[in-house]
This record gives sequence, structure tokens and C-alpha cells, in this order.
Amino acid sequence: MRGHQRTLDIRNGCIDLSHGSGGRAMAQLISGLFHEAFGNEWLARGNDQSAFDVGGGRMVMTTDGYVVSPLFFPGGNIGSLAVHGTVNDIAMAGARPLYMSASFIIEEGFRLSHLKMIAESMGEAARAAGVHIITGDTKVVERGKADGLFISTAGVGVVPDGLDLSAENARVGDRVLISGTLGDHGIAIMSKRQNLAFETEIMSDSASLHDLVVKILEAGAHGVHLMRDPTRGGLAATLNEIAQQSDLGFRLQEEVIPVKPDVAAACELLGIDPLHVANEGKLVAIVSPEVANAVLAAMRAHPLGCDAAEIGEAIADDHHFVQMATSFGGGRIVDWLSGEQLPRIC
Amino acid sequence: MRGHQRTLDIRNGCIDLSHGSGGRAMAQLISGLFHEAFGNEWLARGNDQSAFDVGGGRMVMTTDGYVVSPLFFPGGNIGSLAVHGTVNDIAMAGARPLYMSASFIIEEGFRLSHLKMIAESMGEAARAAGVHIITGDTKVVERGKADGLFISTAGVGVVPDGLDLSAENARVGDRVLISGTLGDHGIAIMSKRQNLAFETEIMSDSASLHDLVVKILEAGAHGVHLMRDPTRGGLAATLNEIAQQSDLGFRLQEEVIPVKPDVAAACELLGIDPLHVANEGKLVAIVSPEVANAVLAAMRAHPLGCDAAEIGEAIADDHHFVQMATSFGGGRIVDWLSGEQLPRIC
Repeated sequence: MRGHQRTLDIRNGCIDLSHGSGGRAMAQLISGLFHEAFGNEWLARGNDQSAFDVGGGRMVMTTDGYVVSPLFFPGGNIGSLAVHGTVNDIAMAGARPLYMSASFIIEEGFRLSHLKMIAESMGEAARAAGVHIITGDTKVVERGKADGLFISTAGVGVVPDGLDLSAENARVGDRVLISGTLGDHGIAIMSKRQNLAFETEIMSDSASLHDLVVKILEAGAHGVHLMRDPTRGGLAATLNEIAQQSDLGFRLQEEVIPVKPDVAAACELLGIDPLHVANEGKLVAIVSPEVANAVLAAMRAHPLGCDAAEIGEAIADDHHFVQMATSFGGGRIVDWLSGEQLPRIC
Repeated sequence: MRGHQRTLDIRNGCIDLSHGSGGRAMAQLISGLFHEAFGNEWLARGNDQSAFDVGGGRMVMTTDGYVVSPLFFPGGNIGSLAVHGTVNDIAMAGARPLYMSASFIIEEGFRLSHLKMIAESMGEAARAAGVHIITGDTKVVERGKADGLFISTAGVGVVPDGLDLSAENARVGDRVLISGTLGDHGIAIMSKRQNLAFETEIMSDSASLHDLVVKILEAGAHGVHLMRDPTRGGLAATLNEIAQQSDLGFRLQEEVIPVKPDVAAACELLGIDPLHVANEGKLVAIVSPEVANAVLAAMRAHPLGCDAAEIGEAIADDHHFVQMATSFGGGRIVDWLSGEQLPRIC
């Protein structure tokens, strides 16, 4: 670009309103920071949209807004989280993630060095998942009108022929499998926010699950009825949602639900049920009893599924309750979260 | 849904943090407000992603964040603007818009009645453009951490076989056509923000241009080299961008560039060049001289192109300058906007 009036001072510079103006400063930010981090042939063309070829068939589209606070947390940041979350929403449909968009809403004064770190994390997470960030947008709002940075992503992917994962496929007797420990992401964020110190730092589980999904589908084939990632609202919200959509109920066994000791301790301290806490690298699979063992073995053989467990089963229930047999031999209903205990967890 | 603890009081209610929690209040908001406004079979399935079938071929994807202030303005609101902007980014590639996603970042305390009006405008604009809003996300941040409402949309569309609009197609001698008057959207926003009163209210030109694009391509066929919508940064930014990407320059004639008298007066009052002001319902087409008259006639025959004009041509220029012969017989360089005169215009 000709005649730069100033260069992008990433080390010391901050975002100002001109970076959202559609003028030269914005063009510099896009070429000097985002293209560097996401670098691919689509962005290089500099259009307001990007084209790609598809072979036909069934595609999926998803979107998520990210407002997590703090922006950097143990195990990730808002950028890696945004890519993982988008990849996972696509993967839960059994689809292969292909392309993503990213919309940045930035508060005036935000440090360019932080923006660069976040964009680099996004680029890295996208490359690791085999997706391309092919189009984006940048807006800047005045100081005090946002909280540092919000990112909204959308993603598209392609569904393998003949695959149709849906809550409607769930049947009485289906097994509920969880790919690992619950609550890690939410508790990592809460600990950081409240400056809680534990013996070992609790890390977010934020990760892309597309490869684990491939292994699950190989092992379980048509016995895999549906998958969901229990993010906001935790496993409780996810299973209540599935119960309604599938016109079933669920019965869980508390003692086999995997929760790390540190996370369990933090939940008790904070007065939070781990079943309500967000996860960003876990999935629930509802599978037929015939394939449950094979799918569980496939999960455990994968680095992101080593703590996988069978935690319950689908039952007939017109009320669509999620019940849990507790460790003390009693029982309780696992309800949705009714208030908001954990704002801005993702 | 069973056991609502409270209903959604759209008339008097406000957004609170629980509406972003992943719990029951969020489910109510989605089913009671967004599904009502966008109502379609994809959203009704309640998945975190939505599937659609494609016949194969070339697709485009785009995204935009909307932070316009005020949220309601003469001629539209943030919701209709978000749909028009997404439809237009897809249409500029000559593609037919098909599906959209919408991510809402809402400040605690935002009035539900306003959210409903905005969602209804989105639904209406989407139906008018033949696109479906098939997936969405809702986040709520604490009071003071956003400014009412931000919306990020993404869209996908399908490109007709054999069509490839791109800045690289532009040639020396190509004509520059604009579909109508410049500056209406930006000045409508600025007037509202600054409480400027004119004899007649200046209305935003916010509109979906997909149908105008169809007519342009019918009239100009392969003589249409590229199209762009001059949004943020106005016509000046758009032509400078095209000049760089196409390795050309442009020469414009000021006296034939259409600007409404009220808009021209407001620009003078505000000290703004109308070529820098955002448009949300206009397009620039770069076409071969052979088809220029036919395309111009097709534009003028369309309700959204009645003020269309040929305003200049592409010239050889290693500096990629956009020059303009002024009405007084002089000449000047039309540069990018260098600072930020018009924050949060879209």
C-alpha cells in the first residue's frame, strides 16, 4: 500500500477509532496483523466475502459470540476458544469443519500486542483443526462501550453422506457417554477471575474435538445417535435440552461422572454444581447399547478422551426429567441452571 | 418447556445476565423472541448448528459486525442493516444469498421490546431477500460492558456457474457505474446522532441489492468485471481498494456523481466529503465500455438504481491513484479517509 502515514506499532500501540474506519489504518491492521496470523489465499484476495468450492451434499453452518472475561486464562484465550467452539459445533453434527469467518468488535485503547497474540492463537488453532479463516470484519467502539474485545465466529462444514445425528434418533436404553472430566473450563475462568489459588493451576479444557468425533463415528457407526458439547449451562443444560428434543428422560449415576478433585473442590468452595459448569473440550454422545463399549474404548484411546466414562442411560419419561442417583444412594433431579452463576464464561 | 419460573415480559422486561446463561431464561428468549421473528424449520430443530443441502459448485462466505449508534435510525435499525449488509456482501460476488447466522452480544438492561423490534426487522429483511437465518447465538454482558446491542452476522451464498467477479478482471477503459446517490446512510446516522434538523428527514439507503445485481448481470454478462458496495470509508475507500487490487487508477467526474441536495448540505455543514461517507444500499460496478450503457439502463429500470450514473473510468496508473476532475475545472486526488470522522456508522 502506498504512502503509509504511520506504521502499525504492535509492541506499544493501541487500537483507536481509525482502525475501524474503513480507511488506511484499518487496511494496515488487517494486512499487518490479521493476515499475518490467519494467512491464507482467501484472505489475501481482500474481498468482502470469500469463495470456495463444494462437492455438493449436506453442509452445516454455526455461529458463536465470545465475550469471555478475562480474555487470557489458563489453557487458552478468547481466540483459541473461538476457534475450538466453532470447530466443535460443526463436529457435533458429525461434519468436517472447513471454513470460518471472524468478526472482531474492539474497544478503543485495546493493546495491539494483545490483539496479535489472540489472532495468532486463532490462526494456530485453525491450522491444527484444518479449517481456514477465510473472511472477517473489524469494528472499533469508543472506550467504555465494550470490554476489550468480543469475537463472533461462524463456521461451515460438510456432513459425510448418509450421516444424520439428531436428538430424534435417541431411544430408550441408549447409553450416555461423556468424553472426560466436567467443569474444567468454567472453573479455570472463575479461579482466574476470583484469584483463587489451588495447589495446581486448573486449566481450561478448550480443544477442538473434530478428530475425536471421527474416531467415535468409526467405532460406533449408526449406533451413534447424537453428540453435543456441554458448554454454557454445562452437562445439565445439554441433557435437559436433549431430553426435550428426543421426548425422553435420562438417568445418571453421580459416582461415575468424572470430575477432577481440584475442580470438585473449587465447585464446593464457590457453591456451584459441576454439572452446571461450562466445558469447551468435552462431548456427550448418546449411543445405542450395542456400540457403547466400542465407542467408549475409542474415546479412551484418544488423547482428548482418556477420562471418558459411561454415566447413564436414556429412559422413557413424559416429563423429560434428568434424574441422578447420588453417591449417597439417594436421587435428585438435575435441572437447568435457573439464574446466572457464571456470566461471560465463553 | 416445562415449569417456566417466569414468562418473557416483552412489553416491560429487560435483558439480564440469566438470558445469556445457557439455562432456562436463555431458552425462553430464543424460543419466545428470536424463533418468533426468524421462524424457520432450521431454527426449530434447536441445534447448535444447522444443516442444508447444496448442489455443489462455488460458494461464498462473508461476515460483518454491526455496532451502529443509534440502534434505530431513519430508514432502518441495526437488525435490518445487518441483513442488508450481509446480503450485499454476498451479492457483490454475483452470488445468490442463501443462509445466514446471527450472533447477538447484548448489554444487561437492554429492553426486550427493542430486541423484539430489531429481531422482527431482521426476519422481515431476510424474508424479503429470500435468505434464512438458520443459526444464532446470544451472549449477555454486564451493564456498562457493551453499548446496548452488537450483532455479528455471517452469510453463505452460491455463485452461478462460470461467474468470476474480481478486481483482477478490471481493465483500462472500464467504466465506473454507481447505482445511486452517495452518503445517504452515513448522513442519516450523523444527523440523528447530532440532532441536525433538515427540511426533510434524511433516510438511510439501507437495502438488499441482490435483485439489482441479477439485473446487472443479465444486462452486462461477462462485461461486468466486478461490483462492490461502498460502505465504511465510502466510495473513496472502495475505489482506492479496487485500484490497488487491479493495479489500475481511476479518473472520476465530480459533476456527475449523484448526491442528494440535503446530503450535500449536511456534508458541508459537518465538514465531510460525501465520497468518504458510508452507503448501505448502493453498489459500484466496474464494467467494460461495450456494456456500460446496457448496464446503466438496467440499473435505472430498477427501483434501487433509479439515480444510477456513469461517474468515471479506469486508467493506467502505477500509483493506483483515484483522481477526480472537479466541478470547477480543477482536479484532485481522492484519498482514503485517514482519521476516523464517522465512528460506528454500521
